[in-house]
Order: sequence, then structure tokens, then C-alpha cells
Amino acid sequence: MGEFELIDRHFKRKPAFARPQTAPKATNSIAQPVVLGIGDDCALLQPAPGMQLAISTDMLVQGRHFFADVDPAALGHKALAVNLSDLAACGAEPLACTLALALPPERARDDAWLAALAGGLFALADAHACSLVGGDTTAGPLNLCVTVFGQVPAGQALRRDGARVGDDVWVSGTLGDARLALGALRGEWTLPPERLAAARQRLERPSPRLALGMALRGIATSAADLSDGLAGDLGHILKASAVGASLTAEETTKIVAAGAHPSGAGAPFDAETLLRVALTGGDDYELVFTAPPKARAAVRAAAQASATPVTRIGRIEAEPGLRLVGADGRVSPLAARAFDHFG
Amino acid sequence: MGEFELIDRHFKRKPAFARPQTAPKATNSIAQPVVLGIGDDCALLQPAPGMQLAISTDMLVQGRHFFADVDPAALGHKALAVNLSDLAACGAEPLACTLALALPPERARDDAWLAALAGGLFALADAHACSLVGGDTTAGPLNLCVTVFGQVPAGQALRRDGARVGDDVWVSGTLGDARLALGALRGEWTLPPERLAAARQRLERPSPRLALGMALRGIATSAADLSDGLAGDLGHILKASAVGASLTAEETTKIVAAGAHPSGAGAPFDAETLLRVALTGGDDYELVFTAPPKARAAVRAAAQASATPVTRIGRIEAEPGLRLVGADGRVSPLAARAFDHFG
Repeated sequence: MGEFELIDRHFKRKPAFARPQTAPKATNSIAQPVVLGIGDDCALLQPAPGMQLAISTDMLVQGRHFFADVDPAALGHKALAVNLSDLAACGAEPLACTLALALPPERARDDAWLAALAGGLFALADAHACSLVGGDTTAGPLNLCVTVFGQVPAGQALRRDGARVGDDVWVSGTLGDARLALGALRGEWTLPPERLAAARQRLERPSPRLALGMALRGIATSAADLSDGLAGDLGHILKASAVGASLTAEETTKIVAAGAHPSGAGAPFDAETLLRVALTGGDDYELVFTAPPKARAAVRAAAQASATPVTRIGRIEAEPGLRLVGADGRVSPLAARAFDHFG
Repeated sequence: MGEFELIDRHFKRKPAFARPQTAPKATNSIAQPVVLGIGDDCALLQPAPGMQLAISTDMLVQGRHFFADVDPAALGHKALAVNLSDLAACGAEPLACTLALALPPERARDDAWLAALAGGLFALADAHACSLVGGDTTAGPLNLCVTVFGQVPAGQALRRDGARVGDDVWVSGTLGDARLALGALRGEWTLPPERLAAARQRLERPSPRLALGMALRGIATSAADLSDGLAGDLGHILKASAVGASLTAEETTKIVAAGAHPSGAGAPFDAETLLRVALTGGDDYELVFTAPPKARAAVRAAAQASATPVTRIGRIEAEPGLRLVGADGRVSPLAARAFDHFG
């Protein structure tokens, strides 16, 4: 199978994917954001009037971001999910994506593997009305580079530089599952099979928090997605906003993946390990965001509207740096350091 | 040097690159297309009102698209150039780009190499007012994935599917130099040193035909850039437009890199070899386009306005397929086949 046949067979879909929730009944070319999809030198997008285009790109490399024996459907899902998570962190609505793919010869020949990869990507893309509009395919060590395009009303994007002293610090969902699964797969520790399956699902098929991100427009003062660990990603917000933060150990411990608690069935971790996993483990793809205390009801309403649990875990302060405050009031500094691919 | 320091040092520029030729004197945030650049979860773009966004992505892999000992400045140039060439083929004006980069550890440590790579990319980006607005950096086998964003007035993009029976077929510049250089570097043939240097320049530092592409809006009926060879890329137009074409051997031979002609100094190729190189050699990044005969004066005016030579080499016909017509009137079929990465 040649390059063009491979693209036609696995990645080109006709008719072009329609966006059911926003497609108008009348024929209005402005309202359909994908003007031209796969098969030309460029794809053409038309964001709605008054919208800005949000763009993010992430590259996944075998041995670095996934194991060689990865489930290809999970890989297709994750390659898009980590990018959609960046749109979520900006409060943007997904429109489209491109996929550049380097394939070793044995993968390029493996029709079932390619069909599963495309299937995983398209299932998530369809769930978020995100059309695959273009890409590139070449021979080479396995590498997936997805670029996503979303739209957000001008001036309403959630950014990293908007946190203000006195703001609350919030986190969506629970943290640590992805790191617990990775550690188990690497042999750092063991997890009961049922627990591993649940944690692995979060590692391999993260759910980008798009509904929450859009619901937080005009409410949150800053946001970032948790790809490199809470300490590091909150650290990006603190640096961009030129502020610091204190987290309460009690609240922060609460958001550690519930089933992994020492009180949970078969989870042999002490509280300190769990806290470390939650603070520095990556790949959770939850959102960390800030909002003023007067917006607490609005934050809870946004969380409810998007069916996404949120927890208030700390407060933005003028003093630079990131601190953890224990139940006894003791303050310990936290290194606000993200995962570093060359560290 | 860590990942974030690497990005800060080589790829983040402050103040954000301003677009000298379009930046208005008055403060008008709409007129500045890059709202937010490197350093957040997403970049934010605001195309001008009435504009569509043209998007293309290309991935370059070591050993496939460039040699391990490639000049890093040339690599940075080419990674962007091949993408800008896709914008040219659509008649789009460049706005911004992203760069996802997988680096082996020895490259991530090599400050001079990285500075040269970034320098090559930024020099071309600056020449076309194309801001680097985001990206990703990871460890892995050397791989560069650039995605470019341009704007084009709604409905005016040059596409592959607009060629009509009776249209002329045009090509910009000359063809074959990149393939001649590649063959010499691979040891398939030898070229005199001066000739090799000139051909290698075209292989390693192609000039995307952006000015011509924009000048052809409203004139050309279809266009594609020549990345995979004239026969293949014109083949894409023929397939998308459901037509065929005949090229005249005499005119087509004229556009073969002038200095490589048998009459040229030290070029030992026969006419047939040169024609084959021009038709099937890739990496030229010229444009092939079609326009009705009544637009010939307009095409020549667009070529002159953009200081880009163009040659009329054939005609679109109803009969499918691609043919070459000799001076004696003999018609030989040409395989309209593009370079295939898995062929």
C-alpha cells in the first residue's frame, strides 16, 4: 500500500464530517467552519465572525510518550486528546485538526494497526466535532504530530497570565492515576488488576476537559492543563502571572485519585507518596485554574453545567513560589517544576 | 539545558515579531493577526475580517528528507519553506507557524546547532512576516513538524479541483535542480563543483513562490506546488479536477534547470534524462497552475508583478491522463505518479 492509498483508506472520509450541533439548517457557508478538508495543498477554515483561532501542537514519540506495544486505538485517541486538552485550557471550542505521521515500514504495511489508530482518533474527534482536515505521512521512526484548531470569542480565551493575588486555585477531577499506571507498567510498584485497568484507562485515554474550559470563559482568571504535573503546570501560571501560591495539604490530598487512597481497596501507598504522585505525576489532563473568591458560585455552576467535579485547593499570593500548608499550619516549599524532556 | 530553557533561548523572541508591511499606524487589535504567541497552552490568531485561514503541515525526518550532516540553518529554512510553499499554492498570505521538534540528546545539548536551526527558520519566517507562535519539544529521533497558517480572502483560495478543459498549464521557474543535486550527493552522477553548489542551494534552501501565488488569485483556476515532481503534482490537479493534460516536450524541456542543459557547461546529461528529472524529480517547490487562454496576459502580469518567471507548457483536455507531445507530434503517455514515501 502506497502513501496516497494509505491516506485515502484510513484518514480521508467522505462526505466531510459534518458538525451536528452547530451546522445550520439553512445553507450558510460562514457557519460551517471547515471550508476545505484533506486533499489539497492547504485546508481552509472559516472561524465564526468575532472568533479568534486557538492553536496547539503536540508531538508523541515512541519510547517517550508511549510503549512500542501500545494499543493503536488508544494511541490515536491520546494523540488528539493531549491537543484538545490545550484547547480546553484556553476555553476554546474544537473545530479541526491535522495529523502528521512518521511510520516505520512494518507499521505502514499493517492495515489493522492503521485502521485502529485512525479509529481511535476519529472516535474522539467525532465526539468533539473536530474534523481531520489535513496532514502528512512519511516513512520514519514512529511519530505522531497533531495540531488542533479551536475558536474562542475575541478576548475571552483563558490564559496563563491572568492569576491575581487573592484568587482561589481550583483543580478539576482527580490527579495521579496516570502516574500510578505508568509506575505499575514500569515495575516501580504493583497495583491490583482492577485498579491498574482503571488507572491505565486514564493514562492511555485521557478525557480533555473541553466542556469545563468553555464554561469557565469569563469566570476563571487563568487556566492551564495538567500534562506535566500539578506543581509544574501551576508553576507556569505563577510565572506567567508573576505571583505565588499556597496549597492546603488536606484539600490537595483529597483530589488524589480516590481509589488509590491508603483506605482504598488494595492500594499500598502512604499519604506522602500519593501527594507526590498527584503533584508531580504528569499526563492527567485535568485543568488547574484560578478565579476570585466572589466567583465561587459561578465556578461551581460551571462545573455542574459541564458535569465536571472541581476542588478548591489553595490561594494565589504575592510571595513568589509554591507552598504546601499542612493541617498543623506548617508550610513546606514545593518545587514548581514541570516534567522536562531533557532533564 | 532543559526543555523550557531550550525553548526560551532559541525559539522564544520578545517582543513578539511585528509584521512591518501590514501593521497599521493606528492601534487596531484586529489588524494584528497574532494575538498570543509562544508560552501558553494555545496560540491565538485573528485573521482579518472576510479572510479564511489556510493551513498546512509537513514533517521532515532524518534520512528521509535530509542527511544526518545537514547544515542546521538550511534544515530550519527548509522545514518552513516546504510549508510556505503549500500556502503559495493556495494563494495565501503567511501569518504564523508552529514547530514541533523531536531531538536526540546530542542535538538537544548542541547549542550552536540549535541556534543555527532556529536562525535558518527565523530568517525565512521574517522575510515572509510569519511569526513562530507555538510548538512542542521532546526527546526522540530527529523530526521537525512545522504547521503554517495563512489567510486568503473567502472564496479566492487556489485549489486543485478547478482546472477546466481548454485551460493552459503553466509552471513557475525551472525544474530539476533539486533532483540533480540529490543525485550528485547520492553518487548517482557527478556535477561540476559550481553547478553542484547552485543545485544544492535549490535542494536545501527552496524559495516558496508566495508572491506569485497571491498574484494569481482570481486568475488561476487551479494550482499545486511541486514537491513530488511535475508529473505527480500535476497529476493531483488532474485527478481532483477530473480532467487530463498534454504537455509539449519542447516547452517542458525549456523549463529544465537551464544550467544543466547538455549545452550548459559541464553538464553531461542527454535531453531525455533531463526531461525525466524535471518531470519526476521532487523538491523543486515551484508552482504548477492552470488558467484559461483568455487570462494569458493576466498570468504574465502576475508573473511580472511577483518577479517570477512562468512558462506555458501544455493544455488541459477532457481525456484523462497525462501525455507528452513531441516536436514530431508523437504522443507518449506519462505516468502521473507522485513520489511515494512507501513506494
